[in-house]
Amino acid sequence: MEQKKKLRIIPLGGLGEIGKNMTLFEYGQDIIIVDMGLQFPEEDMPGIDYIIPNIEYLRGKEKNIKGVFITHGHYDHIGAIPHLMPKLGNPPMFASALSAGIIKKRQEDYPNKTININVVNYDSKINLGTFKVEFFHVNHNIPGVLGMVIHTPEGIVVHTGDFKFDHSPVADKPADIGRIAQIGTKNILALMSDSTAAEVPGYSVSENEIQKVLDDIFIKAEGRVIVATFSSLISRIQQIITISEKYGRKVAIDGYSMRNNVEIASELGYLKVKKGTLIKTDQIKNFPDNKVSLMCTGAQGEEKAVLMRIVNKEHRFVNIKKGDSVIFSSSVVPGNERTVQNLKDQLYRQQAHVVHYKMMDVHAGGHGQVEDLKMMINLIKPKYFIPVHGNYYMLKMHADIAETVGVPQSNSLVGSNGQVIELTADSATLTKEKVPANHVMVDGLGVGDVGNVVLRDRQQMSEDGMFTVIVIIDGKTGKVLGQPDIISRGFIYMKGSPELIRETKRRVVEIANKTAAPENDVNWAYVKDNIRDQIGQFLFDKTQRRPMVLPVVIEV
Amino acid sequence: MEQKKKLRIIPLGGLGEIGKNMTLFEYGQDIIIVDMGLQFPEEDMPGIDYIIPNIEYLRGKEKNIKGVFITHGHYDHIGAIPHLMPKLGNPPMFASALSAGIIKKRQEDYPNKTININVVNYDSKINLGTFKVEFFHVNHNIPGVLGMVIHTPEGIVVHTGDFKFDHSPVADKPADIGRIAQIGTKNILALMSDSTAAEVPGYSVSENEIQKVLDDIFIKAEGRVIVATFSSLISRIQQIITISEKYGRKVAIDGYSMRNNVEIASELGYLKVKKGTLIKTDQIKNFPDNKVSLMCTGAQGEEKAVLMRIVNKEHRFVNIKKGDSVIFSSSVVPGNERTVQNLKDQLYRQQAHVVHYKMMDVHAGGHGQVEDLKMMINLIKPKYFIPVHGNYYMLKMHADIAETVGVPQSNSLVGSNGQVIELTADSATLTKEKVPANHVMVDGLGVGDVGNVVLRDRQQMSEDGMFTVIVIIDGKTGKVLGQPDIISRGFIYMKGSPELIRETKRRVVEIANKTAAPENDVNWAYVKDNIRDQIGQFLFDKTQRRPMVLPVVIEV
Repeated sequence: MEQKKKLRIIPLGGLGEIGKNMTLFEYGQDIIIVDMGLQFPEEDMPGIDYIIPNIEYLRGKEKNIKGVFITHGHYDHIGAIPHLMPKLGNPPMFASALSAGIIKKRQEDYPNKTININVVNYDSKINLGTFKVEFFHVNHNIPGVLGMVIHTPEGIVVHTGDFKFDHSPVADKPADIGRIAQIGTKNILALMSDSTAAEVPGYSVSENEIQKVLDDIFIKAEGRVIVATFSSLISRIQQIITISEKYGRKVAIDGYSMRNNVEIASELGYLKVKKGTLIKTDQIKNFPDNKVSLMCTGAQGEEKAVLMRIVNKEHRFVNIKKGDSVIFSSSVVPGNERTVQNLKDQLYRQQAHVVHYKMMDVHAGGHGQVEDLKMMINLIKPKYFIPVHGNYYMLKMHADIAETVGVPQSNSLVGSNGQVIELTADSATLTKEKVPANHVMVDGLGVGDVGNVVLRDRQQMSEDGMFTVIVIIDGKTGKVLGQPDIISRGFIYMKGSPELIRETKRRVVEIANKTAAPENDVNWAYVKDNIRDQIGQFLFDKTQRRPMVLPVVIEV
Repeated sequence: MEQKKKLRIIPLGGLGEIGKNMTLFEYGQDIIIVDMGLQFPEEDMPGIDYIIPNIEYLRGKEKNIKGVFITHGHYDHIGAIPHLMPKLGNPPMFASALSAGIIKKRQEDYPNKTININVVNYDSKINLGTFKVEFFHVNHNIPGVLGMVIHTPEGIVVHTGDFKFDHSPVADKPADIGRIAQIGTKNILALMSDSTAAEVPGYSVSENEIQKVLDDIFIKAEGRVIVATFSSLISRIQQIITISEKYGRKVAIDGYSMRNNVEIASELGYLKVKKGTLIKTDQIKNFPDNKVSLMCTGAQGEEKAVLMRIVNKEHRFVNIKKGDSVIFSSSVVPGNERTVQNLKDQLYRQQAHVVHYKMMDVHAGGHGQVEDLKMMINLIKPKYFIPVHGNYYMLKMHADIAETVGVPQSNSLVGSNGQVIELTADSATLTKEKVPANHVMVDGLGVGDVGNVVLRDRQQMSEDGMFTVIVIIDGKTGKVLGQPDIISRGFIYMKGSPELIRETKRRVVEIANKTAAPENDVNWAYVKDNIRDQIGQFLFDKTQRRPMVLPVVIEV
C-alpha cells in the first residue's frame, strides 16, 4: 500500500544564513526548484571563492525535476546556476526577462554555456506535472522580481522571494497589492516569506525618498560625483542616471558586471537612459568636472573593484582629486566594515568629499521590514507560515511577527537547511528528516574538493606559518647524514633568528638519531612523529607560536 | 647659535586609526608621554596578537623622558605598557587610582612586573622639567579618566583623552564643566580632542538613559539574565549590579579580566556593590533562575571569551536554557559583525531570548558626539585645534566641526602618526618631519619580528596553501634519483587528486633533469626557480589556485 502523498518542501539554502537560496518542492515524482544562489564565504574559509548548495538529495532524481524558477537576478538567487544546472541535467528554467538576461550573460564566463530559459511574466501560468505556478509582482532593489504562487495537490504555497512594498519605486512599478490580496482570498496553505530585515522595525524606505537625498548631494557637488554601489542594484543605477540627466551630467559606468547589467537592463527596457547620457570612462576628462558622474563597483571595499583601483592609483583613466564627491550608496555588508573605513580614509586623504549612509541615508534596503512583513502576512492570510531567507534569529523574529498578526506559533515552521517540511491540506510538520545541506565550497576550478581538513590547514598556516624539516637518514646505520634542511614560511623571519634555527637543527639530528637507530627496526612514522611533537613544542616554548611542523625523512 | 626652541608634539599612535594611542610632548631636553596603548590587528595580519607603537624616535632619548601620563585604563591607552616601559627605562608614570590598579594587575602577567606609578587626582599638579601638568574630570565608560592640561613654555595645551559629557553618569560624577570652562579662560594654545564619534550627530547618550532600557529588560526577564560586555566597561558593570540588586538578583562575574577589574574597582571604591550580591559562577545553580544575573565577556564573539564557551557547551557551570535572556551590551566592533550574528543564531537555537542594540539600544558610546565635541571646543576656546583618536576621515570631520564653532580650518592641524607638529606661542605647523611610526606587531613572545614578508607568506598560504617539492639529485650526473616527494597543505585534498600529483612529479623530474644536467654546471638556484615557476603555472592551470610552491633540491 502506497503511503499517502505529501508535499515536501526542502530548503537547501537560505535558512539560518543570508545567501545561497534554493528550495525544493517535491510531490510524488515531481520536483520544482525555486532559486539557485551562492553565498560569500565566512571569515574562517580563507581562499574560498564562494559557497553553493549541496544537491546530493537530487542525485538519481534528475528526471523528476520539472522546472527551476528564479525569483530575481541577484547572485544569492542565481549564483550557483553555472555549477548546478549541468549536474541536474539542465531542466527547464523559468525567469523574468531581466533575470534571464543576467543569467545568460553570466553563462558566457563558464564552460557550459547553453542554458534554456523560458521568459515568464506576471500573467504566465506554468503547468509542470502536479504543480501549477503563477507569479505576482513585488518590489526589491532590482526590477523583474517574481513572487511565486505554487498550486499543489495539498493546497497553495506562496513564496515571496526577496521583497518589499514600495509605493514609489524607481525603474519599476509598485508591488501589485491588489493581486496579492486576491491571492489571499484563496485559502493559502502556507506562506514562505523573506526574513532578511525582520529585525528592522517600521516600513522599508521608498527608493523615491532616496532620490531626494541624492538630489541634495548632486546640487551641492561642485566637481565630479562618483557613486559606488553593487553592480546589480538596477534601481539605484537608474536613480543616478536620472538625477545626472536632471543636472546635465554625463554618466560613465565602470566595472565589468555593472556595465553588463546596465546593457541588459537598457535593452530590455527596464532602465531608461536618454540618448547621449552614457559615456565611456576614458571620456570623463573631456567634460567639465561638474558635468560628469561616474558609477562604479567597490562600495564594500572589494579588492579588485573599480573604486579600490581608483584609490590605489591603479585605474587607467580616473584619479581622485579635490572637489570629487564620493557616494557610498549601499550599507556595509557585515565583515567589510574595517576595509570600508580604510577606503574612506584614503578618499579623505586624497581630498575627496565622502558621503556615507551614516551621515546621510542614501540607502534603502531591498527587504521588507517589520511592517511590510506584517502586511504581506495579512494580505496572504496563510494557514501555515514558513519564514525563509535569513539567519536563524531573523527567522525566529519573523515567526514572532507572524504571531502578532494572527499566525499562532504552532503554525509557524522555523526550520534549517536540509530539514524536510511536510505539508498536507490540514497539517504541517517540521520533520526530523535531514537531507545533506552542508556547505559546498568553490575554490578556483574546484567545486567541493576543499573540505574541512584543507581549510583547517590554511587557517593554521595563516596564524603561525609552517615549518618543514627535511632530514636525510642513512638507511643502513639509522644515522642522520649531513645537516637537516629547514623550509619555513609565515613563522618568523628566519635570517633574524640564526640561533633558533641552529638549535632546532641540532635537536632534529638528536631526535632522528635516537628514534631511527636501526636497533629500533627503523619505523619512519615514529621518527616523524617524534620530530613533529618535540620540535613543535620546542618552537612553541621559544616563541609562543605554533607553526605547522612538517617532518620529511628521506632514506638513502 | 641655538635654534629657537619649539614645542614638538609627536603622535606615535591614534591618528588615522582607532587604537594604540600614544603622544609625545617634547621641549628641548624634556619629554612627556601621554598614553601607551595597543591596537587589535587588521584582517590582513593573520596570527598577530596586537600592535603597539613604534618607539624608535625615543631611542637615545630615554633620559629625557620625565613622565608618562595615562588618561584611563582601557587597552588602547595602556596596552603597550608592559612592552614599552622597560625599553624606555621605566620613567615615572602618573595615573588615576583606577587606571593604576588595572595597570598593576596586568603587569603580573608579564616578566617585568615592577612598575612605579604615582597616583594622581583632579587636584594634582605635576612639575616635570619645563612641563607642568594638571588634570580635569571628563566622562567616558570607565571612571578615573584624566583630561590633561599641559603647561609648556609656549603656552597651554589641553588633551581631552577619551571623553564625553554625561550629566547623569553611572559609577562616576558628571564631567567638571565649571573647571573646563575656567581652563578655557587661560588663552589655550591648542586643544587635542577625541574624534572617535565625530561622525555621529547629536549629543552622546547618558549612561543613565541606558538604565531605563535595562530596567525594562530585567522586569520582563523570567529566567536568568546574561549580560555580555567588555571587561573594562566599569560603568556598564555598575549598572548591571545596581539593577540586579534592585530586582533581588545575585550577580556572578565570569571572565578573568572582568573579575580582576571588578575587584580593583570595588576595592578602590569606584564600584558600589552591596555585601552578598556577588556570587561565584558555580553557585548560580543554587538560586532560582529569576534571582541571578551573569555578567561575562564575549559580546564581540571573541573565540575564547565566556559567552562563546557557554554557547559551545564548553563552560563548566553554565549552559543556555529556555527562559534565559542574553543581552549584548556593546555595539559590534567593525570586523566582528558576522561572528556576532552567528553567536546570536546559536543563542536563539538554544532557546535564549536575545536583546541586541538594534532592537533596543542598550549601548551608550563612551565618546563625545558632534554636539559634545562642539561644546568642548567652545569651553576651551583654543587658538589651534588638533583632532586626535580616530580614522583620518574622523579627524577631518572633527576639524570641520571645529570650523563651525569658530576655529578656522587654517588653525586646525590634521596630522598622521609620526608627523611632527611644532607649536610656538603664535604659530602651529604640521611639519614635513616624520619619525618612525609604522606598526610594531606582537605575536606570541615576538615583538616586531613579524614583518611584511612573514605576513605576506601567511596570507598567501591561507588563500591557497603551500606545495613543497623535494627532489634528490645525483651531484655527479645531474639526474634525479627516485621520485620527488610532495608535501602540500591547504591546497587540495591530496588523496583526492592522484592524477594531479602523479603528473606534477613527472614534470618535476623532467624540469630537474633538464635544468640540472651537469653540462649546465649545475646552478641549484636555477633548478629551483624553474621548478617554482613551471610547477606553479601548471598547478594554476589545473586548479586556478596559486599555492606557495617551495622547491627543495637535495644533492647527494
